Amino acid sequence: MKPNLPLNADRLWDDVMALADITDPAKPYTRRSFTQLFLEGRAWVAKRFEQAGLTVRMDAGGNLIGRREGRDPSLGVIAIGSHSDTVPSGGRFDGIAGVVTGLEIVRALDDAGVVLDHPLEVIDFLAEEPSEYGLSCVGSRAAVGALDDKMLALTEPGGEKLGDAIKRIGGDPARLAEAKRSDIAAFLELHIEQGIVLESQSLDVGVVTSIVGIRRIEVIFEGGADHAGTTPLHLRRDALVAASETVASVRQRAEWLASETSGYFVATVGILVVEPNASNVVPGRCRMVIDVRTTDPAMTTRFVEEIDKDSAAHAAAARVERVAFTTLSDGPPVACAPVLRDAYHAAARSLGLKATDLASGAGHDAAFMSRICPSAMVFVPSKAGKSHAPEEWTERDELAAGAAVMLEALKALDKSLPRRAGAIAK
Amino acid sequence: MKPNLPLNADRLWDDVMALADITDPAKPYTRRSFTQLFLEGRAWVAKRFEQAGLTVRMDAGGNLIGRREGRDPSLGVIAIGSHSDTVPSGGRFDGIAGVVTGLEIVRALDDAGVVLDHPLEVIDFLAEEPSEYGLSCVGSRAAVGALDDKMLALTEPGGEKLGDAIKRIGGDPARLAEAKRSDIAAFLELHIEQGIVLESQSLDVGVVTSIVGIRRIEVIFEGGADHAGTTPLHLRRDALVAASETVASVRQRAEWLASETSGYFVATVGILVVEPNASNVVPGRCRMVIDVRTTDPAMTTRFVEEIDKDSAAHAAAARVERVAFTTLSDGPPVACAPVLRDAYHAAARSLGLKATDLASGAGHDAAFMSRICPSAMVFVPSKAGKSHAPEEWTERDELAAGAAVMLEALKALDKSLPRRAGAIAK
Repeated sequence: MKPNLPLNADRLWDDVMALADITDPAKPYTRRSFTQLFLEGRAWVAKRFEQAGLTVRMDAGGNLIGRREGRDPSLGVIAIGSHSDTVPSGGRFDGIAGVVTGLEIVRALDDAGVVLDHPLEVIDFLAEEPSEYGLSCVGSRAAVGALDDKMLALTEPGGEKLGDAIKRIGGDPARLAEAKRSDIAAFLELHIEQGIVLESQSLDVGVVTSIVGIRRIEVIFEGGADHAGTTPLHLRRDALVAASETVASVRQRAEWLASETSGYFVATVGILVVEPNASNVVPGRCRMVIDVRTTDPAMTTRFVEEIDKDSAAHAAAARVERVAFTTLSDGPPVACAPVLRDAYHAAARSLGLKATDLASGAGHDAAFMSRICPSAMVFVPSKAGKSHAPEEWTERDELAAGAAVMLEALKALDKSLPRRAGAIAK
Repeated sequence: MKPNLPLNADRLWDDVMALADITDPAKPYTRRSFTQLFLEGRAWVAKRFEQAGLTVRMDAGGNLIGRREGRDPSLGVIAIGSHSDTVPSGGRFDGIAGVVTGLEIVRALDDAGVVLDHPLEVIDFLAEEPSEYGLSCVGSRAAVGALDDKMLALTEPGGEKLGDAIKRIGGDPARLAEAKRSDIAAFLELHIEQGIVLESQSLDVGVVTSIVGIRRIEVIFEGGADHAGTTPLHLRRDALVAASETVASVRQRAEWLASETSGYFVATVGILVVEPNASNVVPGRCRMVIDVRTTDPAMTTRFVEEIDKDSAAHAAAARVERVAFTTLSDGPPVACAPVLRDAYHAAARSLGLKATDLASGAGHDAAFMSRICPSAMVFVPSKAGKSHAPEEWTERDELAAGAAVMLEALKALDKSLPRRAGAIAK
């Protein structure tokens, strides 16, 4: 127990659980972006925002925003945000903890009668997790002007375009430029670590130094969907054979690179879809997505060159065509703002909590927000490092401690952040 | 052109095309068993049966049957059948050609004023292709008393049981024993070859000597659905890594066995499903189905033993559990009835058509029917051996030639088949 935190740990916890409970009952915890469940979750968030006295709006990029006015609107907004969507069969904390922390900080400020100089906004960014449209961080891209027409034209398997989906959930792609923010003075995000550093070292919070760059490569093999009983092995063009060899290459190459470097390197084939996927038909087509993450962009370049050659060779050996080897997205590594990191560390010290610097192996909305304003993240412990799985877990007091660090940092930053030109001119 | 065939080649062809056209427009040619499209196809078949003067019924196993009476019902039925369901993105002929051939033979007999001694039935067997419930030849299993309670309890991904699905499309699993036939004197099936023997040797028809045995093995790997960004490679339990290595082993082992033997041997991984199948989540679960076919059961045994060991080793290397290595189905090789094969050869000779003996690498309803009555198949050529694909093709005259061979064989068998005890006693 960590008593005397400047917020209500139970209220924070109960709301995280309540939002997590809005899930596909057959696949807990699932609340995929753009689905009916996602809209139910957002209706819940909007209601809580209103109950906390926030003015609620949705921007053109589909971000749900609750705003609390400050003494001096010209100072620019301090924003706290994360996302309420999940991966399929994900957890209760990823994204959710960050959104609800923003909400609880507002309530804690109100309880303490604190009026900030800066306006404060809590943002539920749209579709941070990779969506059915093949893109992640849709909302934070929009907020920084990085959601382009090509992305809006991406389609999900049913044929709906991302732009139409954003419109369907309440955004306005035609006015997307209006979603780009130029009024944010600082962006803060609390997230679960999704790793084992904090737990293994018995630390309370992690102050994120940098966020890995993520490149996603789509590889498609096309062969022949021939009869599995009557087609001799030497005449087959089996797309799954080429795809399976490529999965093995990705793992092997990644292990070699990770062992060579002192930096961070991982690569994963998380998506593999076989068509027609029938037991008596030779696979005619396979689509896979390779996810590559490192703090050193040169390693990504080297890895992708190697897999490019490997997968082409596997296609030739299996007598199939490699019809795509395409970069779906490519985000560079991002450094978090030192002034905000210092505020987190100072807040942790003042609360008697143990903090450490660490890198984030996961991408976050904060990586995009850092393009337009100083941004930094607080991590709270993840039990056994589990994430994107139903076992994802953070203790009530661990979550409250991280939220308290953010609250104390926020109050300090409200006074210490450099005053903007507009404010000084007043 | 092969003129003077004793049936209407255009009428046969047009009906094959008409039935094939009842397809999922997004994935031609797809008419999966138990779907709405399947029921539309069957309504069309039933209407055509009625128009040809057949008495239409559905048996408890969900088989659609059209019956033409003969002079002596006690002789037992000569049945002609195949199936109207397809694989996903399959062709226009597999199964369909056999059902419509039965229909055309009825019409040709009527046109020629032929009344047979034996009753004649045309059967559209339910779900010959592997269905979403993980089972093939559902209807022909029912007809021979080989559809058991365990099979009826199989479920599709949505949770529906096979037994409930059979009921939904008009069968009656509670009275399944009534579907078992004891009144069939001979079973004839026309099918496309799905191989390249007939085309490469410029032959008109193939007389099937034997049908390969097919064993299907389900393998499930369970690991950990961890975050693809934050989980170090050496701590991962990636189910797809184990599955991919197993796909490679299946291909490698199959090539070795095929090269060692003079018999027929193929093995295929046609189904591979990854969960949760998201780009930023380490695959937590993979399910695959291995399809093994040979004319020599000892080879299947040896292959399965090898893959059992290989897949267990791959699971251990990837730090995942192999939670299933299960035989889904195991049909032995089947020899076709010599008396029927002789009738096909004689009919081909009388029509001036070139025939050859050959083995079937595909399973067929005839393999089950052979358990209860003399059964034999006629193959017609498949262009480039293509099957289970939209490119599946047989020429109009090639199909008509095969149907004519069956018609002539049927007329001869009607007189020459051994009279049954019941008939002789009359």
